[in-house]
Amino acid sequence: MNFPRSPRSSVPDPVFTWPIRVYWEDTDAGGMVYHASYLRFLERARTEWLRARGIEQQRVSERHNLLFVVRDLSIEFLLPARLDDELDVTIGSFERRSASMTFVQCILRRADGATLASARVRAACIDATSYRPCRIPENLLQGTSE
Amino acid sequence: MNFPRSPRSSVPDPVFTWPIRVYWEDTDAGGMVYHASYLRFLERARTEWLRARGIEQQRVSERHNLLFVVRDLSIEFLLPARLDDELDVTIGSFERRSASMTFVQCILRRADGATLASARVRAACIDATSYRPCRIPENLLQGTSE
Amino acid sequence: MNFPRSPRSSVPDPVFTWPIRVYWEDTDAGGMVYHASYLRFLERARTEWLRARGIEQQRVSERHNLLFVVRDLSIEFLLPARLDDELDVTIGSFERRSASMTFVQCILRRADGATLASARVRAACIDATSYRPCRIPENLLQGTSE
Amino acid sequence: MNFPRSPRSSVPDPVFTWPIRVYWEDTDAGGMVYHASYLRFLERARTEWLRARGIEQQRVSERHNLLFVVRDLSIEFLLPARLDDELDVTIGSFERRSASMTFVQCILRRADGATLASARVRAACIDATSYRPCRIPENLLQGTSE
Repeated sequence: MNFPRSPRSSVPDPVFTWPIRVYWEDTDAGGMVYHASYLRFLERARTEWLRARGIEQQRVSERHNLLFVVRDLSIEFLLPARLDDELDVTIGSFERRSASMTFVQCILRRADGATLASARVRAACIDATSYRPCRIPENLLQGTSE
Repeated sequence: MNFPRSPRSSVPDPVFTWPIRVYWEDTDAGGMVYHASYLRFLERARTEWLRARGIEQQRVSERHNLLFVVRDLSIEFLLPARLDDELDVTIGSFERRSASMTFVQCILRRADGATLASARVRAACIDATSYRPCRIPENLLQGTSE
Repeated sequence: MNFPRSPRSSVPDPVFTWPIRVYWEDTDAGGMVYHASYLRFLERARTEWLRARGIEQQRVSERHNLLFVVRDLSIEFLLPARLDDELDVTIGSFERRSASMTFVQCILRRADGATLASARVRAACIDATSYRPCRIPENLLQGTSE
Repeated sequence: MNFPRSPRSSVPDPVFTWPIRVYWEDTDAGGMVYHASYLRFLERARTEWLRARGIEQQRVSERHNLLFVVRDLSIEFLLPARLDDELDVTIGSFERRSASMTFVQCILRRADGATLASARVRAACIDATSYRPCRIPENLLQGTSE
């Protein structure tokens, strides 16, 4: 799995970081974080990145009848996170298209900076009723890319 | 915590049982099932009990604009469930009021019949838009109680 | 459901508060926070309360071979939390016994201070191998209560 | 995202299918199944596929001190699943290496056979203490592949 960076469209060094603490709820009987929990961590960072740009998704849903949903993703699990670990979830690059956004993200262990997981996630904009793909409104995400 | 049985209203011996297998997703780093996972198990049994009475909640939501939500619950965790365990989630008694239903439920380990958890859950009927309490429609749950 | 306060043993006004944001992962198709998610929120606050007292549970597990597990709980759901809501999870009182701790907790909506849920949770100390009840070591939780 | 099939090593038509029902716990406030829930569904099918081959993971962990963990995965979300939906989670092909297994999986809606998600998941065998990669024991998975 590799994450090619498009030299044209990806914003250089957007560097958004969201801190996350590992709780019991995130772990499994293997003693480490359950693999699907990483997806929740990645989404929290994307949600906070949107919020930092003034986009509250509950409001987007109510006002625009739009949802952002994950369309596809790939993730590589490199090292296990454990209970009580402090993690930093980053957005390393972001690319906007008319109806979707692609994020390159990492999950780092704060104690030593080790990369625990790296992922590429594409979120699409859909109509909240029909679930059909939609253009992202012009005024949303303004100035976030190109 | 005790679960007093109302002699008047609780149905004697409704005995509904729903089998559940414990997966990685249900466990935590303590090596046993995470305590909040039991609530998911209890709800699956209630959902299947409703389904066995012809009540599909997605349809109830669409047709009647109603939701059943948990209003309160108490649960006692007696013994840990572990990965790969087969459980039986039971509904030991059910009591219907005009706007709520109360379930007495247990989670048993199939291998030896041990009670792992016992709970009492009250679910209320609410309007799906205003989230205000609602009477349960007469035709729903007909014949389920008194 | 009422939460009688023992005048002898409960610490007056311990007031610990942990902020939590509601994400997609916490909600369900009813448009509000899934009922079992509140248990995760309550535990995060208890975990942070322990951490503020120097108790990292991963370390307790490794050094003492002990786990804190929920033994029983009761919770009342008063008002729904929704996506993007900011919540404050409080520990209103704490009572320590030789082998267990009881917490009275609330979940408040920060915007208006409304109580969304109130709960009473008893966590027991167990041996991490045998899962048998254990005394809480003297040096743990020192000075937290008597 | 494409799923190249290795003509040499992938078993033709292994066809394992595991039925799953969508519950409230699996959905989010968008009214559909939360994206990370699909990973739980995929893992249940892999776990049952292993069990059908006599491999109980709790026992593997206790006897061999080994864990199977997801090393990487890619998933495409094509259509939303909803509350009460009946799904079939399939293993379309399986490839075994010395220390890992790769599964190509789909999630289908039983009502109309529509493919809701397709995924490729690689699970690695690791030592349960050191979390280091391990060879899969010869006697495990015997006869599952070439």
